[in-house]
Amino acid sequence: MSSDIPEPAADEIATTPTPPYTAVIFTSLRTAGDNGYTAMATQIAELAAQQPGYLGIESAGEEVEITVSYWQTEDHAKDWKRVVQHAEAQRLGRELWYSRYVIRVATVTREYGN
Amino acid sequence: MSSDIPEPAADEIATTPTPPYTAVIFTSLRTAGDNGYTAMATQIAELAAQQPGYLGIESAGEEVEITVSYWQTEDHAKDWKRVVQHAEAQRLGRELWYSRYVIRVATVTREYGN
Repeated sequence: MSSDIPEPAADEIATTPTPPYTAVIFTSLRTAGDNGYTAMATQIAELAAQQPGYLGIESAGEEVEITVSYWQTEDHAKDWKRVVQHAEAQRLGRELWYSRYVIRVATVTREYGN
Repeated sequence: MSSDIPEPAADEIATTPTPPYTAVIFTSLRTAGDNGYTAMATQIAELAAQQPGYLGIESAGEEVEITVSYWQTEDHAKDWKRVVQHAEAQRLGRELWYSRYVIRVATVTREYGN
């Protein structure tokens, strides 16, 4: 990665607290071409990290992309939704970047791993 | 994709019912090389689709991979966990395929999209 491009704010696997907490699962099908997407995605991840109740974010994929953001409570996730909706990103996203997307808000009840 | 390799059982974006339902978010960091991973992942997705309570699966990424499977209830997700744990895949997965993974079980409460 060029040193001119900032690293994403996300860790690869988020460090999250003992459940319960809130997960927002964003699954999208991307359109062809970047169209400013990469720069926007970096900015949005940095903005998310500054919001109250932010716990972490994970993102994978290109044509099919899954991004999961984690929040202390569902109210924190709702506040983040309002911030994003006010941003230009949301309007452009619908028009330029995604042919389809689904957002699911969920309460994490158990977590385990290695 | 070669016609010898079956298409994954997953739709790109799962068609899920009105919430609530259960999501199992599997976030992993892959090791280098395939080591039979692609064939196993296809088999596991096909096996999942045959389980009671299965609603759909979404997967994205390579080095960082996020797979979300959806289930009617948390009990269905627990039954699936038992099936997977009995499979060779689970043991090999820990040894060969993933340098790290986290699994989060969550109850989806809201869903929206375009």
